[in-house]
Amino acid sequence: MYQIIEGGSVTSAKGFKAAGTFCGIKKRKKDLALIYSELSCSVAGTFTLNKVKAAPLVISQNLVRLGKNVKAILINSGNANACTGDSGYDDALKMQRSCAEKLNISPSEVIISSTGVIGQKLPVEKIESGLDEIITLLSSEGGFDAAEAIMTTDTKIKSFAVKLKFKDGDVTIGGIAKGSGMIMPNMATMLGFISTDALIETNLIQEILSQAVNNSFNKISVDGETSTNDMVILLANGASSIKIEKGTSEYEEFLFALNFITIEMAKSIVSDGEGATKLVTINVFGAKSKEDANLVGKSIANSSLVKTAIHGADANWGRILSAAGQSGADFDPSKVSISFNDLPILLPNYKLAIDETLASEILSRNEFVININLGSGTEECVWWTCDLSEEYVKINADYRT
Amino acid sequence: MYQIIEGGSVTSAKGFKAAGTFCGIKKRKKDLALIYSELSCSVAGTFTLNKVKAAPLVISQNLVRLGKNVKAILINSGNANACTGDSGYDDALKMQRSCAEKLNISPSEVIISSTGVIGQKLPVEKIESGLDEIITLLSSEGGFDAAEAIMTTDTKIKSFAVKLKFKDGDVTIGGIAKGSGMIMPNMATMLGFISTDALIETNLIQEILSQAVNNSFNKISVDGETSTNDMVILLANGASSIKIEKGTSEYEEFLFALNFITIEMAKSIVSDGEGATKLVTINVFGAKSKEDANLVGKSIANSSLVKTAIHGADANWGRILSAAGQSGADFDPSKVSISFNDLPILLPNYKLAIDETLASEILSRNEFVININLGSGTEECVWWTCDLSEEYVKINADYRT
Repeated sequence: MYQIIEGGSVTSAKGFKAAGTFCGIKKRKKDLALIYSELSCSVAGTFTLNKVKAAPLVISQNLVRLGKNVKAILINSGNANACTGDSGYDDALKMQRSCAEKLNISPSEVIISSTGVIGQKLPVEKIESGLDEIITLLSSEGGFDAAEAIMTTDTKIKSFAVKLKFKDGDVTIGGIAKGSGMIMPNMATMLGFISTDALIETNLIQEILSQAVNNSFNKISVDGETSTNDMVILLANGASSIKIEKGTSEYEEFLFALNFITIEMAKSIVSDGEGATKLVTINVFGAKSKEDANLVGKSIANSSLVKTAIHGADANWGRILSAAGQSGADFDPSKVSISFNDLPILLPNYKLAIDETLASEILSRNEFVININLGSGTEECVWWTCDLSEEYVKINADYRT
Repeated sequence: MYQIIEGGSVTSAKGFKAAGTFCGIKKRKKDLALIYSELSCSVAGTFTLNKVKAAPLVISQNLVRLGKNVKAILINSGNANACTGDSGYDDALKMQRSCAEKLNISPSEVIISSTGVIGQKLPVEKIESGLDEIITLLSSEGGFDAAEAIMTTDTKIKSFAVKLKFKDGDVTIGGIAKGSGMIMPNMATMLGFISTDALIETNLIQEILSQAVNNSFNKISVDGETSTNDMVILLANGASSIKIEKGTSEYEEFLFALNFITIEMAKSIVSDGEGATKLVTINVFGAKSKEDANLVGKSIANSSLVKTAIHGADANWGRILSAAGQSGADFDPSKVSISFNDLPILLPNYKLAIDETLASEILSRNEFVININLGSGTEECVWWTCDLSEEYVKINADYRT
């Protein structure tokens, strides 16, 4: 079993350092983050499926595909370096090269990432001049500064770590994340940087990360949008000397712990969703297929009408059923039952069990669960969403100014 | 060529009467509408694709499929009679039967439709008692009252008519619509009732309506939601004695006029979208396929981030491009150009042409056009959307109370 490390971060695993600083892209706040391991790391990544991909994302995606080890991740916030054409690509390469030079490693050992406004030229010289400082700041306590430096409209730092105790020693997994708008299903939906001191071979690490992302970052929705820049990266530097291999109990436990931390990261993004005041877990049961369960969860998580009703603590179960109905999943609506936490709302054959007062009381909480049983099979899945508030509109009506 | 009839409605075509009244489902406002033609009408309909279908919709859909002529459409607002199980189905049949009895026609000549809150029992006895009054109110000036009586969160009456002058006489097409939330692409997305005094045979009328709906009601988005109750019905009673047949110039002109009126109806729904302050036309050009053009238009029209930026008059073209990128359409982002009205914003190879002041001035208007050329082919399509405002959230957070 894993233990949660209070105050843990991407620097909790052995051999990882990080730092965050201000280099002048934003007006005032930290905007440059660096994660570094002296030991070479195997690496996995999941990347946005948006056709429009930012230059740094294309470069990092190609780098991960090569399957070679890396040592650093350099991230700036405040400018996405997306839709910036050939010169944006050159800027991204420059950012990567400068970082490599100053760390005295190869450019192909540096993952790069940018987040912020689309379509504006990256002030790469500011990043280059910030690099001198950030390298001196690298420390095993720097995870929180890095987490702060990757924020855009986030209101909270997102930083987590867990420790696994095996018979031959400990393994730690830590991660930082950002994201509060443009959170969309079935994609690497934001920035997430995860490190571990486990030893994981290149041919296994991508599979491990992909399944974890599929159960976490790909199951959350703030507004159904996908960014041009979103990625999740997992680095494993082997500093613990504990090898994670298939068919071992360590493998199962590692997966379990990685799933936990990615789900915590994903949930922290939803509950910090732009304008969000509530974190809602959607449990879908009784689907004919895994795909149907997923479609229903996604449709409910993305429904503006469900999300506004949740905001108003209005137990409008008809909108939940209607959202399921427009998902494309195959089920018989008359067999559906719905509950909020353990309070029955709708029973099969459209029997109403709803107590409006109790239902509204649950929907007024900061966190609750919507259970929907399709009554058509045995497959299930979990999604997370947040409410849609006036504040979301305010934040996004005027993001650039 | 057609002429727009100022103050036209579903009663503008010869032989159609209508009325709207209050029968007690809503608190105060009109909630019962009747459209009637003494002459028997050929009928076509398009219906929601939501898996969850309201009882009256199921009944009317089956009726239209039978291909027999009809004489009346009875609509109530304030209660959707959806998710109401077997008793809801009985109530819908009762509503249909009572109307037929009082009009002295067969139940299979009465289309029925309901709109309003989901999951509450229909007070069918109120409708039955309202029927006596509404029949006495039927008149060829009753189109506006009917249009008023089908409104829910609509703030404006939606009523239109056009007249076609042929060598053998005139043909009129008139229609009323409702809808301002739950407007979703690729569906019969709201209530629309259209009448014409043309003579159109049963085997042609559905084809004519389907193509018109596909270019109008299926190309609008307020919030990406589909209702359980939405339908568009076209009645043709032949009172003009002008026959619409394929291969004639009358056919082409009729189609053109029907497209015009359905587009006007659809646009009136978007511009009256819940909380909407702006009507935005999205022209997609240069797509590889019709399907790609449609995917891009739909994705932009549905994007919360685009719609909030429009609300804030923020010329955030990156969000438009990003929405296109997540549509699933195949194109090369570097070939895309974007303009607002005729003001260039983005040129191919990410060349910025944007004048922020002029761009923001256009986005501050009540109506404007976003043109996006994918530079990848010759296919195109048009979508319509509105802005997403704080008001949308307010309306929907508390719809039932």
